[in-house]
Amino acid sequence: MNAAKTGNFQHLGQLQRVAIAPAQLQPEGILLDRPQQHYLSRVLRLKRGDRFIAMDGQGQWWLAQLSENLEFATIVESIPVQTELPVPVTLILALPKNGWDEVVRQTTELGVTTLVPVLSDRTVLKPSPNKLERWRRIAREAAEQSERQIVPTILEPVTFQDFLALWETPPERYICVPRTDAPHLLEQVLASQRSPTGLQQSPIEIAVGPEGGWTPGEVEQAIASGFQPVSLGSRILRAVTAPAVALSLVAAALEINPTPNQSLSP
Amino acid sequence: MNAAKTGNFQHLGQLQRVAIAPAQLQPEGILLDRPQQHYLSRVLRLKRGDRFIAMDGQGQWWLAQLSENLEFATIVESIPVQTELPVPVTLILALPKNGWDEVVRQTTELGVTTLVPVLSDRTVLKPSPNKLERWRRIAREAAEQSERQIVPTILEPVTFQDFLALWETPPERYICVPRTDAPHLLEQVLASQRSPTGLQQSPIEIAVGPEGGWTPGEVEQAIASGFQPVSLGSRILRAVTAPAVALSLVAAALEINPTPNQSLSP
Repeated sequence: MNAAKTGNFQHLGQLQRVAIAPAQLQPEGILLDRPQQHYLSRVLRLKRGDRFIAMDGQGQWWLAQLSENLEFATIVESIPVQTELPVPVTLILALPKNGWDEVVRQTTELGVTTLVPVLSDRTVLKPSPNKLERWRRIAREAAEQSERQIVPTILEPVTFQDFLALWETPPERYICVPRTDAPHLLEQVLASQRSPTGLQQSPIEIAVGPEGGWTPGEVEQAIASGFQPVSLGSRILRAVTAPAVALSLVAAALEINPTPNQSLSP
Repeated sequence: MNAAKTGNFQHLGQLQRVAIAPAQLQPEGILLDRPQQHYLSRVLRLKRGDRFIAMDGQGQWWLAQLSENLEFATIVESIPVQTELPVPVTLILALPKNGWDEVVRQTTELGVTTLVPVLSDRTVLKPSPNKLERWRRIAREAAEQSERQIVPTILEPVTFQDFLALWETPPERYICVPRTDAPHLLEQVLASQRSPTGLQQSPIEIAVGPEGGWTPGEVEQAIASGFQPVSLGSRILRAVTAPAVALSLVAAALEINPTPNQSLSP
């Protein structure tokens, strides 16, 4: 839960964050390059003795302090950040006609690990390499703003059939289907991530369809490949809203603590 | 759960929907006015004997069939639609600088009952009457697209202080606070909506802050007015994403069935 992760570090939220390369980390502290020195002293107007957060982009954060010499920062302490979900969550998304920028932004904020854009029976337009580069840039920016430790991976688009044929089946795969009597995604994730003996968290894959939904044939193929059909609720969601909803539910189910009041009965 | 609500009516998803006024419903069927006749026969190209869904905009749906005379439709059956959440959910939202159109659209899709735009310490720009009219139009469109039975109410903007002073305290009020050791919203709603003896669902209010969050003073005032501080997860969400996440969690918690596997232990 959040308490243990951020309880003692609320003051850190006020500090500026600077990305460093792993090689800049020396036994005696952080060697700052010229652009970083300029950024810290001229842009952020930090002075010797001022503190900031150094991040290596691979999940490590340090509380750092500018030395007399602005070329160098001493490390005050390592910061035990944990903003990532406890298991990898992959979203398989049929490309909606519009709104993918926002889908990438929101699902990145919500903790997605990997985004797999797929071409489905109802979305056949293959995005350009420029589009893919744009989405990766948005993911980097959103990961930074939401204080994540990793940047989600956005794969090259594939057809849904190729995806089903090529990917190994993980323990938990869900396909979201509207107007169905399928169980609710939240219900399934809460039940499957827990057992009578405690947490049993495993990687999760969720497939979300395009405008108009997956075709019946696609749903059948997905079920044959180990996907469980699930509902996101009684209302019909747009293709650009459903991914954020799916991620919200999975992230929350993974992050809430099973306490005596919430634990599942044996 | 969805099963009982929509299981027998999956075929209805393919039918066109037409809004009627309650007065058009006669003992012998639905009297269609000229624009509706034109729409059904010329635009939708329905012929005598074809079926469509008539909605009165107040939560009643009927399966209707065009008669010989296109001025009239017989009622085949009443459709037991239930796309609304089991309790009213009110969102109190500090106005973000941008992106309110999308906030209104997403939270409407997700089932919000009432939106209360509030001016907070960090958002002082009062929206114009035009803006408010625009949001209400977006809510109507989104309610229709997501197949809801009611259109959410969007109130006139008030200051957060006035809101706290004027509104009665409902049983469940939450204020979302980032970088905190507060419990997770999902955890709280799952626990409070249930008791050892079964479901005890009560109206819910959730306050979501602006860019930069609520000020400490606002959080204190809210707590004094009966709001419980909650977290939406370990990552920092943008002001335009947080409302949809809060609604996703509350809607799912209200809609999942407590089964032996998910029920809360006594």
